[in-house]
Amino acid sequence: MTNSTTTPPQSFGVLLFPGFALLDACGPLELLNGLSSVVPITVSLIALDSLEPVATMISLESLSHEFKKSFEQQKPRAVQRLCPTHTLDDCPPLDVLVIPGGFGVPNASQDERVLKFIADSKAQTIITICNGAGILASTGLLDGKKATTNKWWFKEVTSVRPQVNWVQKARWVHEGRFWTSSGISSGMDVIAAYIRETYGEKIGELIPDILEYTPELNPDNDPFVDTWKKHVPANQTK
Amino acid sequence: MTNSTTTPPQSFGVLLFPGFALLDACGPLELLNGLSSVVPITVSLIALDSLEPVATMISLESLSHEFKKSFEQQKPRAVQRLCPTHTLDDCPPLDVLVIPGGFGVPNASQDERVLKFIADSKAQTIITICNGAGILASTGLLDGKKATTNKWWFKEVTSVRPQVNWVQKARWVHEGRFWTSSGISSGMDVIAAYIRETYGEKIGELIPDILEYTPELNPDNDPFVDTWKKHVPANQTK
Repeated sequence: MTNSTTTPPQSFGVLLFPGFALLDACGPLELLNGLSSVVPITVSLIALDSLEPVATMISLESLSHEFKKSFEQQKPRAVQRLCPTHTLDDCPPLDVLVIPGGFGVPNASQDERVLKFIADSKAQTIITICNGAGILASTGLLDGKKATTNKWWFKEVTSVRPQVNWVQKARWVHEGRFWTSSGISSGMDVIAAYIRETYGEKIGELIPDILEYTPELNPDNDPFVDTWKKHVPANQTK
Repeated sequence: MTNSTTTPPQSFGVLLFPGFALLDACGPLELLNGLSSVVPITVSLIALDSLEPVATMISLESLSHEFKKSFEQQKPRAVQRLCPTHTLDDCPPLDVLVIPGGFGVPNASQDERVLKFIADSKAQTIITICNGAGILASTGLLDGKKATTNKWWFKEVTSVRPQVNWVQKARWVHEGRFWTSSGISSGMDVIAAYIRETYGEKIGELIPDILEYTPELNPDNDPFVDTWKKHVPANQTK
């Protein structure tokens, strides 16, 4: 442990809102599954208001114009549904809250129940994946702090809360209670980094090795900062 | 496309058996979600016999001694449940069948319904992740062919079907209809490789870029072939 006087976290929770991105949640979850084989932790999946399975897609019609235009370029036809274990109202106290991104972020960022849940959370650590940083930023908790987010939607996410010190080139950023990561698959790297820092080198190496995953160890190494430009036609460049 | 006379695959299915590994399924699924935003494909999640959500954990008591001993070292406390869209009986015709691994593989490998479904499949391509290769091998379809699987459980999986030409050092192996990959996270690399080969370079680069994921491009580069030995005490070395 980095600090032997600190109780290691035991209670993890992953927020599941309609339109969460599957790998944003399931990459971190598989690392936490591995962690749970060697450390007595619990992992809750927290839906907003019911235990019905939560879908990875939402109706894009409900989104504001700026997001809709951006999202339509990447809208998948395929949808999956993951089962929550709790709702915002009956969620156990969490030591670590994980907030994925996805197409549903603009709506979740304007949902007062979600913002209150995060703002009231006593979690010692809050980790966001992809544009999930936009939900956390909407609470105001990131104001004046360094943070990063998905690079395809960087402008859209960061413009919602310019009070944050947004870092464009970063695989992940850690400041105080908050760890924020880049797009989708970066969730595995930020969780692996969090596990290394929190549980030490031995467990920190074991968990990605169980997954046969080579995590990025350098938070500043972000090969995707400009990658989207390669794929977006020049006349659509943001 | 690698072969312009071949119809590109439109119908993908991922097998969901009790005790499937979450990332084995959801890593490939997120790449297929990305693919579905640019190509008109469908993605089915195929449970055995009901549309009830399928859990990532099973009772280890039901496994044979050899697997139980090996699995107990990695048994997670955390469990997730993913919703199927079809069962073996009502699954639409598939062009591509994806078989994840997980703790439930020994049981699925002895389930005649599963083996018949795979053996009867007209899918032009079958892709296995992790010890999911053990399920495919149990049908006999891999006999005399090169294949790989998870490296932590390599001995247990391969000993079930020695007629296969098992390749120990490989991130993934492609022979004919069959693509088999190494442990858990390698599923993302084999699906990315399959997409590159099938849909060409432009889409092949776009899809992992959407996920901000750097795929392994060399199927022979397997940094995990001996990694498990670092973590397993010498007196438990297999």
